[in-house]
Order: sequence, then structure tokens, then C-alpha cells
Amino acid sequence: MKRRILLNIQYDGTNYAGWQRQENANSVQAEIENALLMAEKNHIPVIGASRTDSGVHASGQCAHFDTESRIPTDKYPFVFNSILPHDIRVISSQEVPENFHARFSAQAKKYIYRIDNSRHGSALKYRYCYHFPLPLDDTVMQSAAKLIKGEHDFTAFSATGGSHKTAIRNVYSLELKREGDLVTIIVVGNGFLYNMVRIIAGTLIWIGIKKLSNNDIILAFDTNDRRMLGPTAPAKGLELAKVFYADEWRNVHD
Amino acid sequence: MKRRILLNIQYDGTNYAGWQRQENANSVQAEIENALLMAEKNHIPVIGASRTDSGVHASGQCAHFDTESRIPTDKYPFVFNSILPHDIRVISSQEVPENFHARFSAQAKKYIYRIDNSRHGSALKYRYCYHFPLPLDDTVMQSAAKLIKGEHDFTAFSATGGSHKTAIRNVYSLELKREGDLVTIIVVGNGFLYNMVRIIAGTLIWIGIKKLSNNDIILAFDTNDRRMLGPTAPAKGLELAKVFYADEWRNVHD
Repeated sequence: MKRRILLNIQYDGTNYAGWQRQENANSVQAEIENALLMAEKNHIPVIGASRTDSGVHASGQCAHFDTESRIPTDKYPFVFNSILPHDIRVISSQEVPENFHARFSAQAKKYIYRIDNSRHGSALKYRYCYHFPLPLDDTVMQSAAKLIKGEHDFTAFSATGGSHKTAIRNVYSLELKREGDLVTIIVVGNGFLYNMVRIIAGTLIWIGIKKLSNNDIILAFDTNDRRMLGPTAPAKGLELAKVFYADEWRNVHD
Repeated sequence: MKRRILLNIQYDGTNYAGWQRQENANSVQAEIENALLMAEKNHIPVIGASRTDSGVHASGQCAHFDTESRIPTDKYPFVFNSILPHDIRVISSQEVPENFHARFSAQAKKYIYRIDNSRHGSALKYRYCYHFPLPLDDTVMQSAAKLIKGEHDFTAFSATGGSHKTAIRNVYSLELKREGDLVTIIVVGNGFLYNMVRIIAGTLIWIGIKKLSNNDIILAFDTNDRRMLGPTAPAKGLELAKVFYADEWRNVHD
């Protein structure tokens, strides 16, 4: 009997060239597909919700695959984790309907961007934070975050090279928190253009050092001009934290 | 003019054979002494407060050295961090009296032990936590922690091979916290025997799965028998969080 299985996956992206399988580079997808090949003696494609970039982490990536094996659905985490390297873990598995698709069924995604705002950088946060030593003014960053939140054409907030029919996206929430030297940006939206979260992070950082003002953000939305905004912040600070599907999303969003 | 400088140091211990310089292995001390050699063209010993074991992390190691250079005291973090690898950072520096000693002047130390108590382990906590998948009962662990706290002969809580005149130590506080799957043990004491914190952690874990009871701890203190207690928990979960010196310690402890 054919089943479609949805996996919840975590990874430390440091040693991977991103989610997507590619020639001559380690990828998370290849590690997971190879583990499945070991377990089922069959090459089965595993489709991720988000094609995270090289160096980006995930605490809540989702991916689906189809199988005709006899492995019980709830045993898949044990099967995968006995084969996968320690920087990739399958946290849970569930059966989903055959028309479910990890990417196309996603209603929203949550990303976290972490900035180590200490003077000298932390040896223990190095893998998961972008170290930015200049003092960041959280208050002006909070105010700019409010402008970015909501439904907009995010063309100015995307790298060239993305493929999409429309650049209109809805950022449902964009929070900024500081705990000591750690500044965390938490963003939830119905979809994200290529590099969009990293450009939001880089822009908020430039706002925080007064190199940009709220007016530049308004201008960027008006002109769709990428050059109005801050740099693309480094991949290592970014983590895909959650993919929301229909049922769960209704609970959260209503 | 000769000055004695005290450094505050962080490191990710994953890639080091501990603090202490040794033949044929990377050590944190060797990295720091080599950086100082590059900066001052002089081999100067750097004395750490604690000889952390292989794989143990530090967010608050302290170390002193003597110098006759003209480098201003507050510039040392910049000098070190421009040479050190990213998994070792010098966070601050200060001048101390010539009779100050990083190890012998220490009044107390704070260690943190982290347990990832999730079923499958987290890919993102892997470097800094010990993954222990069986459910831990925090309530019985809290109760056992109260027995360990205080002044005792900790012989049963030490590995053979340590050198010390007396095994009497005072554990001023021993807290246990749970946030979701993360169980954190925070211990402050006037000194620690070899492997003492890791044996406390391993013992609390065995208490938490009911493999040991409070009675075993009482017996261990009575008999000084290491075999009454739990295993030595792995190094990767341990972090030296703070070294307290006289002034600061009086503020905290009074």
C-alpha cells in the first residue's frame, strides 16, 4: 500500500550546501534520500517545504516522500536517525493524504534570524549567529519592522535569480527581541522571496546603526529598488523554525 | 613596566583536547599562548583558572599572564581575537595585582550541564548538550540535588587521578531547570574535584530514571564509594560559566 509520509527535520546547516541535492556538494536532501535508500533499497525523492540556502539552519523543516515499504509510519525517525549524521535529525513523521505536498500545501513559514551584538563575538554562538559588533538601536529597528510587516510587493527585498509569478507576500508578524547581547528577529509570512529574510535582517541592522531610515524602506517599496535597502545578512544567522499547514495554521492564525 | 593581565575567555571545546597545553593535541591554552607569542614575540605562560577537560566548553574561563609590552590593557581582546580561531574568544581584559593568581585566587566557580531530553536529539543542540532520550523525572532530581548541595567530603563524586589534599568541598547551590526538552543543571561551589560536576550530572540522570534513589547518595557520602553513584556524564554537556574572585564573590555571596 502506497503511503505519503511527512517528516519534521532539524539540521545544523554549517556543513551543507543547503537543502537541495546538487552535484559535487553535500546537501541535506541528499543525506536524507541516501538514508532512505539504505533503509528501503529504493531511490525515492524527498520533497522539502523550503530550499534553504547553504549554511542556513532548520529547527522545523518539513519534507514528504512516497513509500510502499512495511516500515510503520512512526518508526521513520528511528530508521533515519540510525543512518543520518548527527547534524541532521528527523524529529517526527506522520502519514498525510496523497494530495498533500510539503511545499505547495504550506500556508506559512516562520524564520528566526539571530545577531550576536557583543563587542568581541561569542565562541559559543558562532555557528548560529551573525556577529555584528556595532551597537544596534532596538527602538528604531522595532519601528522599521512595523513598516515591513503586512502585505507588500517585496521585489526590493529579493535577490535576483528567484523565480516567482508575483512578488506580493504577506508578512504576518515581524518581531524583534533583545536578551543581553543576542538580538533575535522572528518573522512569519505566507511566503518568502529568494533571500528575503536575510535582506530584512540586513536592512534592520542598517536601520539599527542609522545607516538607513524608515524613509528608505518606504522608498524601497515605492521603487522596488533593491539598492535602497541593507545588505543580505549572512546565512549562518538564519533558521527555518516552522512550516505551517492548513489545520495547524487555522489554529494559530484565527 | 611589568603588568599582570587577567583575561575572560570563551571557547567551544569540541575541537580541543581541553584547556591544558600538551604534546600532539590542540589545546585552548596553546592557542592562547601562541596568539600571545605572535603579538609580543615572547613565549609567555598563560595560567587558567580551571583545567577543563577535552570537549568541555567555557563561557567564563579566566586566565592570567605577565607582560612588559606596551599594548594597552583594554586592547588585549582585539589583539587576541585577530589571531585566535573563531571557537576561542577573549571577551575582556583587566590589570590585576601581581599577587593575583587566576587559579589560586578563585573563590568559587559556576558550571552548567545541559541535557537534551528529547526523543530523537536536536541537530542544533548536539554540540552543547548530552542527548539522553529516556524521560527524566525532574521532581526526584530536584530532591536529590538538595542532598548533594552543601559541604561534604566528595570523594565518591570524583574520578581517581585527581590530586588534592582534601576532598571536602562546598557546593553553594545546585539548581535544576527544565525548559521543554532542555534540562539544565547549574552548580556553584568553592572548588570541584576531578570529574565532580560530570558525576553529579550522571548521578542526577540515574536518579531521574529511578536507577538510583536518594538513599544511594546518602550511602555514597557515608562510604566514599564511587560505585554507589551514576556514570560520568559526557564532556560535551559541560560548560565553565564563571570564575568568582574576591570582590565579586563578596557581592554575590553576602
